[in-house]
Amino acid sequence: MSKQKRYFLTEQEIPTEWYNIQADMVNKPLPPLNPATKKPLSPEDLYPIFAEELSRQELNQVDPWIHIPEPVRDMYKYYRSTPLVRAYGLEEAIGTPAHIYFKNESVSPVGSHKLNSAIAQAYYNKMQGVTNITTETGAGQWGAALSYAAKVFGLECAVYQVKISYNQKPYRRSIMQTFGATVEASPSMSTRAGKDIITRDPMNQGSLGTAISEAIELAMNTPNCKYTLGSVLSHVTLHQTIIGLEAEKQMEMAGEYPDIVIACFGGGSNFGGISFPFMRHNIKDGKHTRFIAAEPSSCPKLTRGQFQYDFGDEAGYTPLLPMFTLGHNFMPANIHAGGLRYHGAGVIVSQLLKDGMMEAMDIKQLESFDAGVLFARAEGIIPAPESCHAIAATIREANRCKETGEEKVILFNLSGHGLIDMTAYDQYLAGNLQNYEVTDEDVSSNLSQIEKII
Amino acid sequence: MSKQKRYFLTEQEIPTEWYNIQADMVNKPLPPLNPATKKPLSPEDLYPIFAEELSRQELNQVDPWIHIPEPVRDMYKYYRSTPLVRAYGLEEAIGTPAHIYFKNESVSPVGSHKLNSAIAQAYYNKMQGVTNITTETGAGQWGAALSYAAKVFGLECAVYQVKISYNQKPYRRSIMQTFGATVEASPSMSTRAGKDIITRDPMNQGSLGTAISEAIELAMNTPNCKYTLGSVLSHVTLHQTIIGLEAEKQMEMAGEYPDIVIACFGGGSNFGGISFPFMRHNIKDGKHTRFIAAEPSSCPKLTRGQFQYDFGDEAGYTPLLPMFTLGHNFMPANIHAGGLRYHGAGVIVSQLLKDGMMEAMDIKQLESFDAGVLFARAEGIIPAPESCHAIAATIREANRCKETGEEKVILFNLSGHGLIDMTAYDQYLAGNLQNYEVTDEDVSSNLSQIEKII
Repeated sequence: MSKQKRYFLTEQEIPTEWYNIQADMVNKPLPPLNPATKKPLSPEDLYPIFAEELSRQELNQVDPWIHIPEPVRDMYKYYRSTPLVRAYGLEEAIGTPAHIYFKNESVSPVGSHKLNSAIAQAYYNKMQGVTNITTETGAGQWGAALSYAAKVFGLECAVYQVKISYNQKPYRRSIMQTFGATVEASPSMSTRAGKDIITRDPMNQGSLGTAISEAIELAMNTPNCKYTLGSVLSHVTLHQTIIGLEAEKQMEMAGEYPDIVIACFGGGSNFGGISFPFMRHNIKDGKHTRFIAAEPSSCPKLTRGQFQYDFGDEAGYTPLLPMFTLGHNFMPANIHAGGLRYHGAGVIVSQLLKDGMMEAMDIKQLESFDAGVLFARAEGIIPAPESCHAIAATIREANRCKETGEEKVILFNLSGHGLIDMTAYDQYLAGNLQNYEVTDEDVSSNLSQIEKII
Repeated sequence: MSKQKRYFLTEQEIPTEWYNIQADMVNKPLPPLNPATKKPLSPEDLYPIFAEELSRQELNQVDPWIHIPEPVRDMYKYYRSTPLVRAYGLEEAIGTPAHIYFKNESVSPVGSHKLNSAIAQAYYNKMQGVTNITTETGAGQWGAALSYAAKVFGLECAVYQVKISYNQKPYRRSIMQTFGATVEASPSMSTRAGKDIITRDPMNQGSLGTAISEAIELAMNTPNCKYTLGSVLSHVTLHQTIIGLEAEKQMEMAGEYPDIVIACFGGGSNFGGISFPFMRHNIKDGKHTRFIAAEPSSCPKLTRGQFQYDFGDEAGYTPLLPMFTLGHNFMPANIHAGGLRYHGAGVIVSQLLKDGMMEAMDIKQLESFDAGVLFARAEGIIPAPESCHAIAATIREANRCKETGEEKVILFNLSGHGLIDMTAYDQYLAGNLQNYEVTDEDVSSNLSQIEKII
């Protein structure tokens, strides 16, 4: 009799609440600060930029469960539950006794997990009477998700896409435009923040930090317009916990519980999304699952960054956030995993890493694509360059099990597919990709150039 | 209470047999003929080109149910059942009282329905001891599917991709290479058939007919190598009936039965795949479902072609097939729906059309993309240019229901997603796409240039 490969929930079983780990954390994240006064922010301080409900979610350290509004859960049903898949093909290719599972978020209509928060953010903005939303995007996965979510709720949407990705991944721009959004390459000449950078450095290829500055600036200068963010912030991670909450039920259907949970790491929402529902059992029920964030060696905020207050964007428009950072002026190398090219980590993850509740692993670009191609040939799904980092970390752990003979249960999040990133695979197969590394000295030198804020 | 949107089967409920409509047809398809002797072919005559079991399936007019081998069904479980989706968003966008459902084959790892037959064909070849397989591909969906299926069963795979698609859709080439296949643009200089065409017409952009000739020639000249085909043939359509058989169970879960079933039409396997399981109830149980094949106006074999014996490929390597054809020398316009650029229709569909068991509708390129963008904005999924034809036909029928007030149940097959076809959407959004039409005179003139074979 053949073994079951995929596990689904019925529409009724889809979770009705998101999990807010802040309420259960022993050491709460430090508060974001107003850069002018250095005073802790209240939700009201965020209202000029974000929808009110999202501002409240951002700073909520009290309620562990947040109700998912019915129209949001209703939209989830078009693609959720996403499958939990037992990766028999990958296990065989590695020759490991480990049991490898992945949560396949690539089956969402826009091809990644980003839609989970995009729908929620578009909904809360719409409910408040907002008519226009702005955002930044790296590889374009968040931008594509928000463009579609905006269309669903009848909002206008403007996206600043990091220039290197705008040029490397033209298909994602077309996808956003097909969904009806306006897309500009960042840095652009349409904002002060963009103009400043282009003036200093005309060949600047952009970064998420810069694109965020531009999107915030547009939101602040446009009537009835709010800004939205695709990762980093606590409310984004909150929405992504739908991944881990589903996975928890699905692992139960498979009769297993993960020893290790792995996700790639850009700002932290996909990592937190799959990890936090399981981490609550480490906090409350004495479980000992390991949580591994896989980040690129070229942008190693968790493995080489410093924990300090810093801005979330290049121009310094955001509140000051207590986080592991490479400095908001950090300009990452032009790796293909555009979604991981961000200088800082969300405040929740930063606190958890400081407290030893999780680990971080840095992965070089070539190792990430070695892993991605192995996975593609074993499982038939071409992973996003971002997700390749999670697969590389999974393979490292599975190889360790091969050495020790341990049948560990490893769960990773396949955050998206790589069908729009085939130029990256082309270059990899042609031997034209290279590794980029950032040393501790690079980081110290970079951080010394920014004003020590607090 | 919110209405259910998607219907799935459990792994146990996935069909265990394919449906062979040939056994139930009142008028059987005429036999394929040996071009030299003009005698009807036996399965043995096909063995030099195809795996033996596939050759037997091709000509089987006796058994209505063919057992799906366990290793094939086991691979199906990685992505099947595919969801049956109620398209509430599209219904609302049209304002129709019709109930629109689609079978979402785009969720397969390679992004289309093609994997259903690729897995079966690779398996039967492997079982017979074949080591290398060849094929042709248009847009690249079949080539991508076969490349992955070959990797699963440890076969070498060589693909001839129609030159226009090779250049328009470079990402699909990369996908095939990522799965480990060799890809050549067709016409190529590596075969006599390719060289002949390039000599006559150096700028020739290729067609499925030419690519088939090249792949067959390579298979015939390579030891332990067989040819495989992604559509047209009866055994390919047989494997695709998994779509309709699943849909039948899923429609039952939704408490409905289709009044109209629609699919786009290239060679017929996706159309037959979703239609034939329902058509058996027209044949045997007095149902009156309409079946509509949506083909491009630029390649209208069903609506303007003639029923006669013709070759399946440009060079004349295949048996003579009794089919609706534009002539095997027909060179279709360079539309983006590369998978529909084929001169003929499979023998089963040709007989059914002749017998009035189904209808055909021709769709112009601009109407197909109008429909695709409407669907993308309403449902979040960007459809393949081929699938846009099915959506356009669906919208026509749904508009008719809007006029009459009828709550008809329409089911269409979303054969694949269009994420690799974004250049086509780019050109559409920029107003740079055009319509191509073929007149009855064009067809007569074209058919008069080929020898009347029988």
